[in-house]
Amino acid sequence: MITKPTLILDEGRCKTNIQRMVAKAKRNNCILRPHFKTHQSLEIGQWFRNEGVDRITVSSLSMAAYFSKEWDDITVAFPTNILEIDTINQLAQKIKLSLLVESVETVEALVQQLKNPVALYLKIDTGYHRTGIFHDNYELIDQILTIIDAAPNTKFIGFLTHAGYSYHARSLEEIKGYHEESSTRMVLLSKKYKSHYPNLICSIGDTPTCSVIEDFNWADELRPGNFIFYDLMQEQIGACHQSLISVAVACPVVAVHPSRNEILIYGGAVHFSKEYLESDIYGKYYGHVVENKVSGWGNKIEHAIIKKLSQEHGTIKVPPTIINQFKPGDIVKVLPVHSCLTLNLLKEYQII
Amino acid sequence: MITKPTLILDEGRCKTNIQRMVAKAKRNNCILRPHFKTHQSLEIGQWFRNEGVDRITVSSLSMAAYFSKEWDDITVAFPTNILEIDTINQLAQKIKLSLLVESVETVEALVQQLKNPVALYLKIDTGYHRTGIFHDNYELIDQILTIIDAAPNTKFIGFLTHAGYSYHARSLEEIKGYHEESSTRMVLLSKKYKSHYPNLICSIGDTPTCSVIEDFNWADELRPGNFIFYDLMQEQIGACHQSLISVAVACPVVAVHPSRNEILIYGGAVHFSKEYLESDIYGKYYGHVVENKVSGWGNKIEHAIIKKLSQEHGTIKVPPTIINQFKPGDIVKVLPVHSCLTLNLLKEYQII
Repeated sequence: MITKPTLILDEGRCKTNIQRMVAKAKRNNCILRPHFKTHQSLEIGQWFRNEGVDRITVSSLSMAAYFSKEWDDITVAFPTNILEIDTINQLAQKIKLSLLVESVETVEALVQQLKNPVALYLKIDTGYHRTGIFHDNYELIDQILTIIDAAPNTKFIGFLTHAGYSYHARSLEEIKGYHEESSTRMVLLSKKYKSHYPNLICSIGDTPTCSVIEDFNWADELRPGNFIFYDLMQEQIGACHQSLISVAVACPVVAVHPSRNEILIYGGAVHFSKEYLESDIYGKYYGHVVENKVSGWGNKIEHAIIKKLSQEHGTIKVPPTIINQFKPGDIVKVLPVHSCLTLNLLKEYQII
Repeated sequence: MITKPTLILDEGRCKTNIQRMVAKAKRNNCILRPHFKTHQSLEIGQWFRNEGVDRITVSSLSMAAYFSKEWDDITVAFPTNILEIDTINQLAQKIKLSLLVESVETVEALVQQLKNPVALYLKIDTGYHRTGIFHDNYELIDQILTIIDAAPNTKFIGFLTHAGYSYHARSLEEIKGYHEESSTRMVLLSKKYKSHYPNLICSIGDTPTCSVIEDFNWADELRPGNFIFYDLMQEQIGACHQSLISVAVACPVVAVHPSRNEILIYGGAVHFSKEYLESDIYGKYYGHVVENKVSGWGNKIEHAIIKKLSQEHGTIKVPPTIINQFKPGDIVKVLPVHSCLTLNLLKEYQII
């Protein structure tokens, strides 16, 4: 019985989403190295393994340490934090650990302090400008590769990019546009270095691109993460239909205010996060109410959205025609804006 | 040694903030029932007890259960979630538990299912419109009081409001304006019912008001929480000077991008939350960098702010004149926008 804000997972949809991505990677002859920051769960990790996945991506060394209990090939897709050298050395002794580098300082620090071999990707900025070496900064790339090649414990394995600007897309056309730019740059870069490093891996991975683009023959490795759950943000971007969203948050109704068509739920910023979407119809909102079913949920209820979040409170606006259907003690189910952040907060889940 | 995003607490400032609020409550002859959702820590709770505090506020029954290990008088300042009746019954057996009600449905459900006595506040809406009975809805108030008075396990103890609109203030004058409206309404309401309930408590509590208003002689109980730490939001509201902020987040630098005056830190939405502020100078921002000191921190560095947050990444913009002072492996210290949400995410802290 649900008594508090609870994440519910539709296992069938999760597994379908996994199978679709596994099939797409196979068709394209790509390694699938899914990003596990989305679910952060050993149990859900097994759903991937059952489909043949044997290597993963995470976003912190802490997460790598957690997953190293069951996974022996892990990429930390985050610029190496040299202050965590002890964790790096411990992990590298136990598993095949791959890290990201993008500066001479960090590579030199690694070379000096590593006790076991690690594989290094060069993090490439193909236009998102969050981090990485600019895709045509060959001088810096060569400088770093020279250091890596000369050291006993570091091995260059390829170029890695995250075309995160696809998150700003709001249509299939826009995603394709971003992808076109990013892929052209990665292909050019890989070609330039392939003669010297014939086995270099060209690694890409963001859920919008991996969801809607079909042709990845030019790439070697895909690292999407969010696709197992999807969420309202991915739907707004155009990466998925609402029927693929496999996660909802069930929240108790604690008050109903018919005079302003509002329902107050136990479910706030510490459950949903303060990530929001904006739309012409709804303005700023933090979640969308769906039809409640005994097991699971149905479609989105139009104009029923989370309009405000405090630490533990959520204020839902609903149409006047349905306000009388809600009373304290009911459960409402809500699709989250960003499933990764919601899962990070709620930690536990119920499977349906 | 700090190697990951770490919350650091300035114990001296925390204790000063506690002492100031304790003194203000004493001057006004008010009970101080501080809100512990801000720190969620038994250890920090002891700092309050050392100043004579013996009753507390929390925002969920889970938090009440945690604090019931050391505290025996707890108010859950959140509309009662009747689905958690088992937890309510367990707690009410062990401690003096006070709950908030605002609807006939919830009170009737409590009356039917309570096994031990609980004290009930009526949650009053004095203008914030998040939740509560409207301050002059005497008909509903009377209806609920009649049910409470007739039942053996429920006892009416007073009116409680949260003038949360003070969070929208951006100056002392605005806070005073909101406070004036809210307090006038609470005084009127209390007067009306005092003849029948001579011991009723008039309970108020939001950090902006409790920080800047001096005269609370008309109230009986103060429930501020955030004031122990304060944060950038409270500073922007006008509730505190930056020198009173007692919490910062120490984050490793993982990359530096001089071409765009950006530093990338290990420290993202899962550490800071996505709460943001907006200012004319900085636009939208998620934290403000302070001068780093061996122990603790100094003043804010002008124009050095977190401009973007992903799950684990934070992008800091700094002035071109200082970009060269940063390199991978450094630690930067950042004041958070909303200390309650940041602490909820980081869970642990280091005391200086």
